[in-house]
Formats: sequence, C-alpha cells, structure tokens
Amino acid sequence: MESLSVALGSRSYPIHIGIGLIGERALYAPHLRGSAAVITNEVVAPLYLARVRAALEGSGARVAEVVVEDGEQSKAWGTLDRVIDALLAARLGRDTLIVALGGGVTGDLAGFAAAVYQRGVAFIQVPTTLLAQVDSSVGGKTAINHARGKNLIGAFHQPSAVISDVATLDTLPDRELRAGLAEVIKHGAALDAPFFDWLERNVEKILARDRGALAYAVRRSCELKAAIVAQDERESGVRALLNLGHTFGHAIETATGFGPWLHGEAVAAGMVMAVQLSSRAGMLTARDAQRIEALVERAGLPTRAPKLAPERWRELIALDKKSAGGRVRFVLLEGVGRAKLKAGIDERWVDETIAAAVQ
Amino acid sequence: MESLSVALGSRSYPIHIGIGLIGERALYAPHLRGSAAVITNEVVAPLYLARVRAALEGSGARVAEVVVEDGEQSKAWGTLDRVIDALLAARLGRDTLIVALGGGVTGDLAGFAAAVYQRGVAFIQVPTTLLAQVDSSVGGKTAINHARGKNLIGAFHQPSAVISDVATLDTLPDRELRAGLAEVIKHGAALDAPFFDWLERNVEKILARDRGALAYAVRRSCELKAAIVAQDERESGVRALLNLGHTFGHAIETATGFGPWLHGEAVAAGMVMAVQLSSRAGMLTARDAQRIEALVERAGLPTRAPKLAPERWRELIALDKKSAGGRVRFVLLEGVGRAKLKAGIDERWVDETIAAAVQ
Repeated sequence: MESLSVALGSRSYPIHIGIGLIGERALYAPHLRGSAAVITNEVVAPLYLARVRAALEGSGARVAEVVVEDGEQSKAWGTLDRVIDALLAARLGRDTLIVALGGGVTGDLAGFAAAVYQRGVAFIQVPTTLLAQVDSSVGGKTAINHARGKNLIGAFHQPSAVISDVATLDTLPDRELRAGLAEVIKHGAALDAPFFDWLERNVEKILARDRGALAYAVRRSCELKAAIVAQDERESGVRALLNLGHTFGHAIETATGFGPWLHGEAVAAGMVMAVQLSSRAGMLTARDAQRIEALVERAGLPTRAPKLAPERWRELIALDKKSAGGRVRFVLLEGVGRAKLKAGIDERWVDETIAAAVQ
Repeated sequence: MESLSVALGSRSYPIHIGIGLIGERALYAPHLRGSAAVITNEVVAPLYLARVRAALEGSGARVAEVVVEDGEQSKAWGTLDRVIDALLAARLGRDTLIVALGGGVTGDLAGFAAAVYQRGVAFIQVPTTLLAQVDSSVGGKTAINHARGKNLIGAFHQPSAVISDVATLDTLPDRELRAGLAEVIKHGAALDAPFFDWLERNVEKILARDRGALAYAVRRSCELKAAIVAQDERESGVRALLNLGHTFGHAIETATGFGPWLHGEAVAAGMVMAVQLSSRAGMLTARDAQRIEALVERAGLPTRAPKLAPERWRELIALDKKSAGGRVRFVLLEGVGRAKLKAGIDERWVDETIAAAVQ
C-alpha cells in the first residue's frame, strides 16, 4: 500500500492505493463515530458491498446501506432525495460516516449527499473504477446534474480519506477502463510531460490491466491532482487546468443526454477538440497535437464529437462554470504537460474547431 | 448605521444595522464582480425589490431577479430547482452575487441556492423581518426542508455581508413581528440575563415598533449570535445553545406541516417546553421558569403546543440534528441567560413535559 496526502490544513486527508484495501478495517476505523451508511449502485453492490460492510461492522459501526441505480442519470435530485430519505429513515445523525462505494457517479452523488445531509457529514471515497481512482474521488468536488448541464448543483466537500483498491479494477468493463484512461492521459497532457511519455510507452500494459502499471497510473494521477487541489481547493485559479477537455466534453454529455457517452469518452473527444483549438490559436505545434490525438486513439477512445448544431455548441459552451464576467475561458495547451487557462479566444477558431470535430 | 463583525478569519463579514440601508449602493458595491441575482418573494418584491435593484445597477451590476412564493413551503427542492434554473437561464457564472431579500425562509432558500449553485457562489443577506434580522441572516446556516423534518438538507455557507434595514420592519405584519421577538427572547433567556431584563422592561416598546428599541434588540441579538458563531461555526459545541426551544419547536412545525405555526411561534412554545423540562430536571427555579413564560406571553406568543400523540413527539424529537450516537440532546437552562446542552435526560421528564405542554 502507498499513501499520499492531500494537503489542505485541518482538512488534509490520505489517499491509500494498493491491492485488497477495500476490506481493511484499519483504513475505516479512524473515521467512525458510531454509525455509517454505504452508498453504492446496483452493479457494484453484489461485488463489493459485503466486504466494505464487514470492515465497517468489524470496527463496531452500525451500518446502513443505500443502493441506487447505475449510470449518470442517478446524479439527479430524485435519487439524492431517496438517499437522504434512507439516511433519515435509518436515524443517522450528524456524526455518521458516509462511504461512497463505486465510480465517479456514485462518488459525486454520495459526496453531495454528505455535503448537504443535516448541513454536512463526513465521508470516505472508495472508488472502484479507474476514472474515480485517478480523478473524481480526489479533491472534494461533489455534484448532481441539472437539465441545463452537468454538475451545475454541487459543493466542495472534501472526503476524510480515499481508499483506492486497484484489485477492484479487475471487474471493470473494458469500455469503462478506457474511459478512466482518458483522465489519466489528461493529467499527462495538461500537467506532466514525463508522465505523458510514460503513458505512450505503457498504454497497452494499462489496457491489459497490468496491476503495476495501473497502480502507477493511479498514483501519479493522484499526486498531480493532489498538488493542484492543495494550491487551489475551490478552483479559483490553477485547478481549472484539470478541466482540459471538459468544456467541450460537458457539452457533448449534456447534448446527448448523459448516457450514450461515458464521461471519460466525452473528455477524450473534448480533449482532442481543446488540442485542435490550441493549434488554431497558434499555441501548440502540430506535432504535439498529433501525439495527444494518437495516444487518445491508442487508448481506444473517441477522437471525434457527435454532430450538434453550431448554435447548440455555443449555447452549451457559454454555460461552462469556468466562464467569468460572461466570458468563456478555455483550458488550452502550450505544449505537452503545459496547460493554460485562456479567455478571449477568437470565436472564429472555436467555430472552426467545432466544424472540424465531427469530420 | 452601526456595523458589527462576525469573526471567521478569511470568511469574516460585516453586519450593518440602521435606517434606510436597503438602497445604499456603497454597502453592495464591495461584493459585486459583474452580475447579481436578487432572490425574493412575492410579498417583499413589490415593497423593496426596486430599491435593491437600483442600488445594484447603480454599482454597475447586471441584475437578474427571482421571485418565489411566500411561506415555509418554498423551502423545498421544487422551488430551489426553479431558482437554479433562473440563475442558469440568466447565464450567471461563479462570479455572480446572490442577494437574499426577505425573511428567514427567503434567506435559507437563497443562501442554500448560493451554497450549491455551480458548487458555491457569494451571497448577501438583506433581511426584512425581525426574525431574519435578529437570527437567521447571521451565521451561515442555509437549508431546505424534507418531508421528514425541517432544515434537514442544507449547508453552512457564510454570507459576504448582512444588511439589516430596521425601516423595513414598518411593513411587517404584527404576527411576524411577534414571531421574530421569540428569537430575541431566546437570545436573552439562553445567553444574556441583562438583555433579558432589558426585554422585560421594553417588550411593549418593541411591539409598538419603536425604532430605537428595535435597533437595540437587533444589535444585541446579532452581537450575541456573532460571538457564538465565531467560536463554533459548524455547531459542534456551544452554537447548539442558540437552539433553545428548537427541538420541540421543529417538532411542532413538522407535525403541523410547515405553515399554520410560524417558526417563531413554534420556537416560543418550544422554549416554554424546554423551560419546563429544565424545571423538571431540577436545573431551573420555578421563579425563573415563570419569568420566561410570562415574557413569552407578554410578547403575544403561544406558550402551549398543539396536541400531538406522544409517540409522534418522540419520533420527531429523535430526528433532531443535535442527536449524537443516537442519543437526543436538549438545550436546557440552569438560569436566565445560562443555557446548557444536556444528553441523557430522563425520558419520564420528557414525557411529562409533552403531556403538560398541551394543557
């Protein structure tokens, strides 16, 4: 087991990465004060709920469980209300511990439930997908979706710990493994050229589920993200760089109704669009753009977006949370590993990027 | 104008109290970064919205407005979703300022909207009821209700400023003035015997809307509350003392369906119950209990609760957010101005208090 720390003063917390961690009592015990509620989904529950429950009960906790439907559509008020109702029915007080067991959707939903249940209770992330282990479980972003866009209702609510058991990736469908790899590639492309180089050499190992390669990809992603979050917890500055590919990616997810495209797939296509916009803006060389697009393709991820009307693209982009003073800001690249947040990008370049994205 | 400060480090904020403040540009200007949204209700909007809007526009802000229905039933997901939809439709970014204009319900709803809109934006409280000026606008508690109880979904989200214009109390219905007075009496009874003495001498002046008396009651209440909040922002300790009367009061509101009883009325009857429970527990003298009940009565507030089945009382009390490890905790009095949080209160005394409350 390796443990990193997200340095946030009194709200600092550990990220544990290893094999077989999910059943380790000692990782949960320091955070328990009498009761816990495991929030998970119908796919993950039969695989891992019993082991998590046993670890919590073994630490003396009274344990409730809430199993929600799988998929992005459960990041909605209706599901959140059912979760909160179940917590109230189990008479869980402010001293309860929420355990988010599952992928990014479960973590976002359960984390937001923890943020607002009785004005906020503690929670632990136990991510079981590559996407959640390398990205969404770290940093305290929680949210549900709104009909007008993704993650528009939420909170910054840091977990008390992240327990990333790489062995849980054994049961992950290939398509979801690739979707998680999109965020790994994003970390290299945005922040760390040597890590991007490593990914170019090791992408096939990751796709073959080599545990050593997976553990390294998780660890390096968490290190990069933890360093950014420690600098800028609430995304008022540098943290926005982690959103490379997300302005276009969220537009794809919203336009297609949260489902046909997995988040990581939308980020992959969105990242290729951001790379192309960076090239058009004269910031990125054609060679670097080509390297990134090629790695996305080798990871088995989409490099092209679905066909949307140009005005729909513009409408969705304008809703992006990074907009400030009504101006859209894009995360663009000045090179592999060198992301920059840019406002005032020529609309013509954006329009050309949109037109080219569906060729 | 008098200004106090709620001392919370980097999240400290001023409370301005005075006459005619609602239209003062200079009080809003420091918090504006381009756009604002005034959230108010259908009763307050015709009275004060234009003046607040003019002050914001005079400071150069683009201003959206959202008018919700009046009353406790608007502290619900449906209304919150409509508010968030309106903010998105107006394309307000993370840099927008929410202005909560109205009473406690509006402040709680608008504050929670600010807490969760795009994971949190800044907001200002502009309370227009006595209850909101003396209590709910200060301290960052925001929430909506759940069918199982009041304020069960919410966040601690501190405002950037509180602007309390005592002149707005001119338009407050008598019943709501009295309901606000319940929280003023609570501050004296729980925390400050000299203030309680002052209230005994001045309750008729307040009911006659003497502006000097009102301004003093608002200021002293805010001083007492600000000092508590500064010590214990998230109610892990001393802040619970501000909930004198609220365990029983919330039960009354929940049982009667949020509406027939105003919050302050329920707190008044709940405070008398807490006082009686304190007597039964041998903590409070009969004379002090009588003083508090007499002042509640002189304020024109209810001293008796509605008739509920004893098992319904127990069920509602068990849901209280102050419960810890499954044990209910009560705020009781050891004397006028000396509240204490107590667990392990004999259930027989609670049952007797409930039985006596509806005589």
